[in-house]
Amino acid sequence: MRRRRLYEGKGKVLFEGPEPGTVVQYFKDDATAFNGEKTGTITGKGVLNNRISEFLLSRLNDVGIPTHFIRRLNMREQLVREVEIVPVEVVVRNVAAGSFAKRFGVEDGTPLPRAIVEWYYKSDALNDPLVTEEHITSFGWATPQDLDEMMQVALRVNDFLSGLFIGCGLRLVDFKLEFGRLWEDEDMRLVLADEISPDSCRLWDVESGERMDKDRFRKDLGGVEEAYQEVARRLGVLPEAGPTDIQGPTVMQ
Amino acid sequence: MRRRRLYEGKGKVLFEGPEPGTVVQYFKDDATAFNGEKTGTITGKGVLNNRISEFLLSRLNDVGIPTHFIRRLNMREQLVREVEIVPVEVVVRNVAAGSFAKRFGVEDGTPLPRAIVEWYYKSDALNDPLVTEEHITSFGWATPQDLDEMMQVALRVNDFLSGLFIGCGLRLVDFKLEFGRLWEDEDMRLVLADEISPDSCRLWDVESGERMDKDRFRKDLGGVEEAYQEVARRLGVLPEAGPTDIQGPTVMQ
Repeated sequence: MRRRRLYEGKGKVLFEGPEPGTVVQYFKDDATAFNGEKTGTITGKGVLNNRISEFLLSRLNDVGIPTHFIRRLNMREQLVREVEIVPVEVVVRNVAAGSFAKRFGVEDGTPLPRAIVEWYYKSDALNDPLVTEEHITSFGWATPQDLDEMMQVALRVNDFLSGLFIGCGLRLVDFKLEFGRLWEDEDMRLVLADEISPDSCRLWDVESGERMDKDRFRKDLGGVEEAYQEVARRLGVLPEAGPTDIQGPTVMQ
Repeated sequence: MRRRRLYEGKGKVLFEGPEPGTVVQYFKDDATAFNGEKTGTITGKGVLNNRISEFLLSRLNDVGIPTHFIRRLNMREQLVREVEIVPVEVVVRNVAAGSFAKRFGVEDGTPLPRAIVEWYYKSDALNDPLVTEEHITSFGWATPQDLDEMMQVALRVNDFLSGLFIGCGLRLVDFKLEFGRLWEDEDMRLVLADEISPDSCRLWDVESGERMDKDRFRKDLGGVEEAYQEVARRLGVLPEAGPTDIQGPTVMQ
């Protein structure tokens, strides 16, 4: 089946969906870190993230948090609503790690006094810089009302996912969300978009403290594929045949 | 006269003042840039900044913006109230320049849609990172009420100083403010502290666009001393004898 490719990102390709207002997200095995300075492949990642993100976005839908997710189509693809992505990445942090620990000179793993919501401008060319509400509203990337809503939703997602992961023995250290504007007739509403997976979350094993996310790739810790599989297994969504790709590639280069 | 030195910063030394609750600010000729990576001397800078800051803080006092300034003591020293410095630098920008232009990939000199207020964590060790209200309030560096007040005052200062400088043929591109907590009995109030000078402002000549501030030093544009003198001259505070230091050094190394 030939489909028009709309966009290719670092971890996914977006194709025109089967009906107007829909998009197909194809999950790749490509991995990048440090704004594309480091690239590689995590075998089976696309298959696992497709399942993990399906599961997490569905559970969020269940508790009344609107998302772009419609349904999974196959091993590497899911159908989502077409949205206009807000160019602001929303990061929620419970524990200092990564760029935050470096920025503030605090040790990785230091619990934060409370969950902290950060905004980053979604721009590969500018290295996704941290930005403030002042920057966002004066450049017109989002309105103060959008930001209030995004912050509220982000904190709800944090509460819900923190609980869900704790139930699997995983600590939700931090994660990144993207929002999209969904147009229905004249009305616009913000919905969760993109994906939620070990690519976009830091997940630490509660017992051992082991990193179960993309930091294994970023920091060359080894066992990358196994960590993604283990997260899928604990969430109850590990494909029975294992994370192999039974679909022929549909990506048109 | 021997006085106890309280603190030595990049551009000033603070000494214990003659009476409780006062501090003497001694203005040095030392210049630094890029978080201390570049160091040098701008002859007469301390004398000029002492005068310029005296003038600007006095005019702000006149319009009801409280500052720490009491009076100038001599060529390089001024008496100020003792305050507890809020560890958040407040930057107001009218035009994209410096780190802002770089962060957002916009050309130096691009007017901003509106004045933008930014917060930076005052930490040489961490390179004064940009921070958000979330960071500031969760680390307890200032309260949401403090931030509201600092933003309001910063915007008033911007309006007033933009007008004042336009009257001298200078465009106020951006500037940095520091605030201090002033304790009076049980009451605390925030007042403007530190200094306002070509060290802490970007000032461009309205006609020629020439930089009349520390960017001449940062960017090796030459004519650094002359630019500081010209700003003092336009403000009507150039010392008659020229910017030479008639005071013996009182800095105890």
